[in-house]
Amino acid sequence: MSLLVVGSVAFDAIETPFGKTDKIVGGAASYIALAASYFTRNINLVSVVGDDFPNDFMNTLKTQGVNLEGLQIKKGEKSFFWSGKYHNDLNSRDTLETQLNVLEHFNPIVPESAKAPDFLMLGNLVPAVQQSVIKQLTKRPKLIVLDTMNFWMDIALEDLLKTIAMIDVLTINDSEARQLSGEYSLVKAAQKILKMGPKVLVIKKGEHGALLFNNEEVFFAPALPLEDVYDPTGAGDSFAGGFIGYLAKTKDISFDNMKRAIIFGSAMASFTVEKFGTERLIGLSQENVDERVQEFVDLVQFDISLV
Amino acid sequence: MSLLVVGSVAFDAIETPFGKTDKIVGGAASYIALAASYFTRNINLVSVVGDDFPNDFMNTLKTQGVNLEGLQIKKGEKSFFWSGKYHNDLNSRDTLETQLNVLEHFNPIVPESAKAPDFLMLGNLVPAVQQSVIKQLTKRPKLIVLDTMNFWMDIALEDLLKTIAMIDVLTINDSEARQLSGEYSLVKAAQKILKMGPKVLVIKKGEHGALLFNNEEVFFAPALPLEDVYDPTGAGDSFAGGFIGYLAKTKDISFDNMKRAIIFGSAMASFTVEKFGTERLIGLSQENVDERVQEFVDLVQFDISLV
Repeated sequence: MSLLVVGSVAFDAIETPFGKTDKIVGGAASYIALAASYFTRNINLVSVVGDDFPNDFMNTLKTQGVNLEGLQIKKGEKSFFWSGKYHNDLNSRDTLETQLNVLEHFNPIVPESAKAPDFLMLGNLVPAVQQSVIKQLTKRPKLIVLDTMNFWMDIALEDLLKTIAMIDVLTINDSEARQLSGEYSLVKAAQKILKMGPKVLVIKKGEHGALLFNNEEVFFAPALPLEDVYDPTGAGDSFAGGFIGYLAKTKDISFDNMKRAIIFGSAMASFTVEKFGTERLIGLSQENVDERVQEFVDLVQFDISLV
Repeated sequence: MSLLVVGSVAFDAIETPFGKTDKIVGGAASYIALAASYFTRNINLVSVVGDDFPNDFMNTLKTQGVNLEGLQIKKGEKSFFWSGKYHNDLNSRDTLETQLNVLEHFNPIVPESAKAPDFLMLGNLVPAVQQSVIKQLTKRPKLIVLDTMNFWMDIALEDLLKTIAMIDVLTINDSEARQLSGEYSLVKAAQKILKMGPKVLVIKKGEHGALLFNNEEVFFAPALPLEDVYDPTGAGDSFAGGFIGYLAKTKDISFDNMKRAIIFGSAMASFTVEKFGTERLIGLSQENVDERVQEFVDLVQFDISLV
């Protein structure tokens, strides 16, 4: 089924305890589209870059079946740039520099051919911009998934709440769930957030896995314990891309299928963190993905018969 | 099968964001024996208290089938006392006061009738004291499980390493695994620690679940997302008690059965944190335990068929 992905396509410069990169390709929509492309080939991407953005990466996306008609290329302008340094535990990071550049006045324009997607993935962006995308659609998608972050809770909470009320699945991390709800317990946080509109909440806990809530059920997906984690950048976006890609492929938005989708999303995130940037998400085979998912199955599979 | 439990039986005074207790009963062996008693009734406890320790709690243990012949009661002396205050996130705490009292010169004496246990659970104690218990046994137990903490890594590492080399299963938390191995990655930490002697390593991650490693496999058990966590004290000990109790009940020390045992251990820990001290571990029914375990099954159960 068709998938519309909206979010940043950008440059990152990353420093982790394991190394340092110059400007490399990043951005929420880059990770989302790449991860989703392993599940469905009917993807439209809406974003904006400057004319400094490498053709190579655009070609990679095209090769993966991502339609770039909605990717605006602003002549004489520069792409969004972020640089950050991760602390030793890789769970926290400092932003060293943010250059909004083309993102400052980003006005997403959904191409006519992409205005009736079956699935919509709104990557982290200004909430009002995310909302403007929903409003351009000619048909309510079967499923709208939105990712956001604490920054928008701090400076654009009202817009964020309005946008959240229009979607089906919200993905945020544990500290953001606590901030948004004012509850420390994630169970209580989920109960409050599900009253804000979304039918389903995904709480991402990084190396500690992810929780999936609806009003009746809760599901937990672990993260894979890895020998080496080089760079956590893009893990959450790859997770979201795998999640919605799998749902689009299987055309099933039941809670049970979302459980499977979360495992596929976690698998894609586990690839991403093994190398810097988007590198590990390029050129995976179906066999690579299946083997990785099997590792998740093995990791949590047990057999208890209660008498 | 018979189980020998060694560890502290003591008083705690606990402050959490949800309340504050006076002196209440605690101690590693108290939690371990109570949790294990839901699985096997053939338990001997070796510990020491002062004559200030309440008969009530000893009667509770006896009612749960715990044999107290090895519990020394020191006339005119006081029981071990610890008081601590948990921070808002309940993941960290400050020790306010430690009175070693009877534990200062604790010389565990295993009663003749308990010298050939099938299972031995060494709760957190001075490593040399844990080792002296192993040496008193007339027969090598089918399984020796040892719990320890960072404190002994700081001040008695050599003794600890000698003791660890004599056991089968080591249970420590994630930061202790990192300290003991010098590795940040838990996968690498496990590889190193398994070379120190134990065949199996359990890494406890509190609210983030637990990992079970042997040389070939890894298994992850989640923690149950709870609406309210009142007091984390004793969670790790209850986990260990449920783990070894289930193994003693089922007489099966295969890795697959240890996966089940970890789920039962996690279930016992999830009860413990719902109230202060040992309160919630007293008077549970078999049905309570089974229902709780079923919640763990539901939490992680998914069904993926890879083609």
